[in-house]
Amino acid sequence: MTSLESLTPFFRPRSCAVIGASRKKGKVGNTIFANMLRSFKGPVYPVNPNARRVLGSKAYASVLDIPGEVDLAVIAVPARIVPEVMRECAEKGVRGAVIISSGFAETGNRALEEEVRRIARTTGPRVVGVNCLGILDTHSGVDMLFMPEEKIERPKKGDIAFISQSGAVGSTVLDMIAEQGIGISSFVSYGNATDVQDYERAEYLAVDPETKVVCAYMEGTKDGKMFLEHLKKATRINPVIVLKAGRTEAGRKAAASHTASMAGSDRVYDAAFREAGVIRAQDLQELFDMARVLSKQPLAKGDRILIVTNGGGFGVLAADEVERAGLKLAVLSKKSMRKLEKVLPEYANISNPLDLVGDAGPERYRAALEVALEDDNVDAVLCIGLFQTVSITPTVVDHVLWFSRKKKKPVVFCAAGSDYTRKHLKKLEDKGVPAFSFPERAVRALKALVEYGRINPEFDRIRGFKK
Amino acid sequence: MTSLESLTPFFRPRSCAVIGASRKKGKVGNTIFANMLRSFKGPVYPVNPNARRVLGSKAYASVLDIPGEVDLAVIAVPARIVPEVMRECAEKGVRGAVIISSGFAETGNRALEEEVRRIARTTGPRVVGVNCLGILDTHSGVDMLFMPEEKIERPKKGDIAFISQSGAVGSTVLDMIAEQGIGISSFVSYGNATDVQDYERAEYLAVDPETKVVCAYMEGTKDGKMFLEHLKKATRINPVIVLKAGRTEAGRKAAASHTASMAGSDRVYDAAFREAGVIRAQDLQELFDMARVLSKQPLAKGDRILIVTNGGGFGVLAADEVERAGLKLAVLSKKSMRKLEKVLPEYANISNPLDLVGDAGPERYRAALEVALEDDNVDAVLCIGLFQTVSITPTVVDHVLWFSRKKKKPVVFCAAGSDYTRKHLKKLEDKGVPAFSFPERAVRALKALVEYGRINPEFDRIRGFKK
Repeated sequence: MTSLESLTPFFRPRSCAVIGASRKKGKVGNTIFANMLRSFKGPVYPVNPNARRVLGSKAYASVLDIPGEVDLAVIAVPARIVPEVMRECAEKGVRGAVIISSGFAETGNRALEEEVRRIARTTGPRVVGVNCLGILDTHSGVDMLFMPEEKIERPKKGDIAFISQSGAVGSTVLDMIAEQGIGISSFVSYGNATDVQDYERAEYLAVDPETKVVCAYMEGTKDGKMFLEHLKKATRINPVIVLKAGRTEAGRKAAASHTASMAGSDRVYDAAFREAGVIRAQDLQELFDMARVLSKQPLAKGDRILIVTNGGGFGVLAADEVERAGLKLAVLSKKSMRKLEKVLPEYANISNPLDLVGDAGPERYRAALEVALEDDNVDAVLCIGLFQTVSITPTVVDHVLWFSRKKKKPVVFCAAGSDYTRKHLKKLEDKGVPAFSFPERAVRALKALVEYGRINPEFDRIRGFKK
Repeated sequence: MTSLESLTPFFRPRSCAVIGASRKKGKVGNTIFANMLRSFKGPVYPVNPNARRVLGSKAYASVLDIPGEVDLAVIAVPARIVPEVMRECAEKGVRGAVIISSGFAETGNRALEEEVRRIARTTGPRVVGVNCLGILDTHSGVDMLFMPEEKIERPKKGDIAFISQSGAVGSTVLDMIAEQGIGISSFVSYGNATDVQDYERAEYLAVDPETKVVCAYMEGTKDGKMFLEHLKKATRINPVIVLKAGRTEAGRKAAASHTASMAGSDRVYDAAFREAGVIRAQDLQELFDMARVLSKQPLAKGDRILIVTNGGGFGVLAADEVERAGLKLAVLSKKSMRKLEKVLPEYANISNPLDLVGDAGPERYRAALEVALEDDNVDAVLCIGLFQTVSITPTVVDHVLWFSRKKKKPVVFCAAGSDYTRKHLKKLEDKGVPAFSFPERAVRALKALVEYGRINPEFDRIRGFKK
């Protein structure tokens, strides 16, 4: 069995057992069982030797008593009895175990954790955790998040996978992206990484048919060589974006005390990421900006960006960021300029940023986008449409969607403002055009499409963006 | 008359005339007159030779026919008759004129603009504009924004002044900060800067009693020496934060074609800003992050930041940013550590970031904040409270507000998430604790309090934060 196949039961099991399924509301084992019962599509069995029923389901004293097969076990029992429970799982033929329980190496019980690792690596089952927040999979309905429901929203179904070394970063980010309407395929928090490693998960999710983009928050890895090797394979299939914390001396010390990670020299990581074809996010916001863009828009064939705007200042800020990000401003062809001269007023400057001027209406945007689509000097478009002006109308949104549907070149949109503006941004975002309030963020997100275009130019053909 | 006094009629006039007050809805002169009628506290006179009444008010054929005094004239008539209108204003004794009209140097009519400048500098009135979006003052009710009302919200009354060289950046940002609940004192967009210069406005707003923080978006200035001289005075009174666009070669070219600004070498600007005590924002988002923090929180006496968190990962990200921003992690005193040992569980690591651990409730936050307040090694606090965890409660918000009310050291808050989290962030923000979703942004905003603490340590005493 390859490492990848051995991870399938964690995300797409046929059946689950929740070991430690409590009857008491508020208990971790109760919350997880309730979540699984509500959202998992296959059978879910509660295991609790002190209960006959949990939330209306017949309870079993041991996983061995369950009549049907069990693919995945979620383990939420005191740390000291985890090895015993795992041995029963092995006997039952359980293929994967997520160990939520804490009280292992992170509190000094290294021997206990070593025992768990030994069982996982000899008889099985393979282990995600220990001391973790577990897994959420919007496609199979696996949901182990034990945070109170009123405190955290679940993201909708989508094609972005998220791997987090930190449970808190994981749950917080899920809650935040749920509100932003970003969809995910799978989420996994891996706690102490006792058995299954970060790079295995990354590679698994990269080949997962429901996933198109893999995002990860990490502080350090245990085996740099294996990490590099597996990520190299992963990035040939789907984009992998990593936010690596512990980049500075201060951050490294903090990471050492948080996840006992050897955060290592940032230069070494930087070189490794580059070699592996991993896209590096600079902060938490950028991680998901990049993921949104990679999930929805085609790759850029080159680094020449056209900025189209009805506000000169936003154009200048975007141009600054294009240069800072190491991208280039596209130089329009003579043919494009002649076309634009016919549509734009005399006082408009046909250049890049292409300032359509404050009194621009939708027809100027249409002309600019047509030119951008056809001009071979343009690889990607940042379209800025400030909705506060008198002449702009919602038709601009339709023109941008027209451009985006061609799936020929990437486009992102930028506008800032309150309700009226937000309504248009939401429409664009819902229909696959990533929309930003700040020009700098829009440019940095576009950069991911340029970078991955170099790493894996075949990606668009494979995911069906190109005929 | 000093330059500063000459600007008072622009922001706090006793009476206004709108010259070119149209009866036709949707016309610039109609929108401005309607806005002024609705929100300006003193008398407003419409001037329109072709109407007897405008929106129910008696109209005058010329400013000279108005019976009462006129402090401020808003001019929205065709460019070619602007000089004539200005001469009438001079005869009437009007002290300030805002010229909204376009069609001057920006479209090639340099001689016409030169004539306006000559009138302004000889007989007066002084001129803001030409070709500008004008002024909004939440205290006097002056409101010249001629964008359609359904497209743009007005910010509430507050103490942040905003100066924008670009009308589009100005109106967009106003709309955005209105939605975020940030209050402003005055806004001015200055278009071609025919007469009154950017540095005069900055200095005026710095001494304005309703203003505590001055923000500016600029692409370039006409007179570097005067700019430096006036800003030096301004920053001794109130903080001045500038977002200077056109920092890169690409941005400089874009600025030249946008506002005909000589954006100049970024190093020269950087040195000038440093000499003048101007705080420099790196992007549009940071400009207002810094303004919010400076407006609400006391200055930091030094650069030593304490990070308090219930999520290790957010702590690591914040620590990284502290170092990148050139700040330091505070080292807690022995006394503080002993106090914390009594309250925190054994498995908590008493360090900085101070990780209160995932099961932290409000009492651990209380203890951490008490220590932070008393420990002389701590200059500022970033409090991270991820609300998704089981143990955290809204009482944490009260503890942070308690710390903030002492006005002894600055505190900012960070939490990310959906509705439940947002509710708490809003409460904090409304009560004066700037709240952020991303730890990196929170740290960069804190930096402004450290910087201005060095530039003008007396600021807190003067604004009444200290007894």
